[in-house]
Amino acid sequence: MRTVKLELGPDSYDILIGRDLLAQAERISALLPQPRAAIVTNTTVATLYLQPLVDALTARGVDVLPIVLPDGEQYKTWETLNLIFDALLGARAERKTTLIALGGGVVGDMTGFAAAVYQRGVPFIQIPTTLLAQVDSSVGGKTAINHPLGKNMIGSFYQPQLVLADLATLDTLPPREFSAGMAEIIKYGLIDDLAFFEWLEANIDALMARDVAALTYAVERSCQNKARIVGEDEKEQGVRALLNLGHTFGHAIETGMGYGVWLHGEGVAAGMVLAAHASRLLGQISDADLQRITGLIRAAGLPVQAPDFGYERYAELMAQDKKVDAGKIKFILMQKLGQSYIGTLTPDIVRGALQAGCSADAVASSLA
Amino acid sequence: MRTVKLELGPDSYDILIGRDLLAQAERISALLPQPRAAIVTNTTVATLYLQPLVDALTARGVDVLPIVLPDGEQYKTWETLNLIFDALLGARAERKTTLIALGGGVVGDMTGFAAAVYQRGVPFIQIPTTLLAQVDSSVGGKTAINHPLGKNMIGSFYQPQLVLADLATLDTLPPREFSAGMAEIIKYGLIDDLAFFEWLEANIDALMARDVAALTYAVERSCQNKARIVGEDEKEQGVRALLNLGHTFGHAIETGMGYGVWLHGEGVAAGMVLAAHASRLLGQISDADLQRITGLIRAAGLPVQAPDFGYERYAELMAQDKKVDAGKIKFILMQKLGQSYIGTLTPDIVRGALQAGCSADAVASSLA
Repeated sequence: MRTVKLELGPDSYDILIGRDLLAQAERISALLPQPRAAIVTNTTVATLYLQPLVDALTARGVDVLPIVLPDGEQYKTWETLNLIFDALLGARAERKTTLIALGGGVVGDMTGFAAAVYQRGVPFIQIPTTLLAQVDSSVGGKTAINHPLGKNMIGSFYQPQLVLADLATLDTLPPREFSAGMAEIIKYGLIDDLAFFEWLEANIDALMARDVAALTYAVERSCQNKARIVGEDEKEQGVRALLNLGHTFGHAIETGMGYGVWLHGEGVAAGMVLAAHASRLLGQISDADLQRITGLIRAAGLPVQAPDFGYERYAELMAQDKKVDAGKIKFILMQKLGQSYIGTLTPDIVRGALQAGCSADAVASSLA
Repeated sequence: MRTVKLELGPDSYDILIGRDLLAQAERISALLPQPRAAIVTNTTVATLYLQPLVDALTARGVDVLPIVLPDGEQYKTWETLNLIFDALLGARAERKTTLIALGGGVVGDMTGFAAAVYQRGVPFIQIPTTLLAQVDSSVGGKTAINHPLGKNMIGSFYQPQLVLADLATLDTLPPREFSAGMAEIIKYGLIDDLAFFEWLEANIDALMARDVAALTYAVERSCQNKARIVGEDEKEQGVRALLNLGHTFGHAIETGMGYGVWLHGEGVAAGMVLAAHASRLLGQISDADLQRITGLIRAAGLPVQAPDFGYERYAELMAQDKKVDAGKIKFILMQKLGQSYIGTLTPDIVRGALQAGCSADAVASSLA
């Protein structure tokens, strides 16, 4: 097992990475301030991992309330969140009752937000079961639900007590979901870790074959990158915005297509390619760099072309981005391969990037 | 003008108390990180104070978005909160756009919660226009909405940048609302300020006549008491729970009667009397003390008898209280007159207090 520490003073916590950690329920029960917990999951994950976890915790004397939500980004709404509150209040969950998120990014984001606001805040633990959640969304305390006008518009910064990433849960992950997680892994290479980008180029086949050693390394290095950046800037006053590489375009794609049509990681993949096109138009990366980026993203089974909504629609969707300041959209761009920065773009460059990176035939996944 | 400082390290802020502060819009505009603000208010307050504030801010170059909600505790719901999000997103409000709460406790609690979670947190300012909001709910950063199963069950601790209490807004406050605010003022005397309790006994007639000097003193001393307690324990790990004197019974009354039937302050008043009955049954305060407490509450135009739901229903309603720990309800009780503590009660004492303090004829207000 590998441990990555996220240093945030009194809110610091461990990210545990390894196989079969789910069976080690004492790692969870040891952290509970009272022997009560609610496990929030979705219908898909519940059939695979809920009962063993309930049994393991129950065996340690924990009173467990399972809460099973519908599966999909389209359910990342207030209505679904309210199902959590209804269940918690119905069972008289208290301020010391811990919420455990068992699932992917949607379950983690919603459970974290529920924990942030139920009775003004209760403890929570992340057990991410998708690659995307293990390398990105379960780490760093961003929680949210979507609003019809924008993704993740309602939420909190609220840190978990523990992240427990059981790599064995990836064995059952569908290929399209696995690829979606790869998008966030590639993102860390492009933000400021060229050596990791090059390692990914060299090991992409092993990763896609889910080789245990390669996967362990990729998840650990991703979490190290994320923990370092979040540790510097928890509330996204500065450098943390770099983690949004590909996300301004990506959120526009997700919202524009309708939540759940493109997976989050797929939107981020096509969004990173658009950011690369913009950076190339600015003369900051070369054609060869662009080819390496699209090559790696394609090899990870991800889309390298975005849907062709047209400039006006993209501009409208991106105007709702949380990084907008005084009407100016902030983009994460590439200064060179493996080094990103926070900048702005003229409409001409955005148009050019969209022309180069959109296609009427774009589909979310090469496997879709 | 009087200034009370709430000391919370980097989250410290001023509470300004005086007449005609609303006209001093530069106190607000000076704090805005961008010249944009949304003013959240309700239909009643809007007709009285919205336009002058909009005009004063606009004259200082602030782009103002007014958001007018329906008036009443029964609207302290997710549905109403969503009206704020819809308006903010429709107007492309950004992370640096400030939310200004202009109104009573319901407006302040909902606006504060909206500010806590819109784009994971935006700045906000409290302009309380009711006595209750000026002495209690606008100070200390508790924000929330109600759930059908319990009051204030969904919310955040989220501090404002400024509280601006314009005592002139109390001129238009209906008598029943004024009395509701008196309940929270009396509460501070009972928590740990016997001198203030005795001052209130001596000055209740002047206060009820809304004498400016008396009112200024009462609001300032209440805010000093609250600021001291919140400064010691922002997240209610300990002493802050004392501020809930009368609230465990009071919330049960509010929820049990249906939100909006009894005003919050009325529930708290009858709840404090029930807490006093329980304390007398425990032999901690005398009959004479009880008479002084009920006398002052009655003189403030507040109910001294609670509705008679019966023990079982009270127990059920109170079991949802946020102070419940391992199934045990925590009550705020009186050790002696002017000194409260956090304790528990046996069912017998609760029954006895309800028998003494409930009436089938209880009405919310002596003026209702």
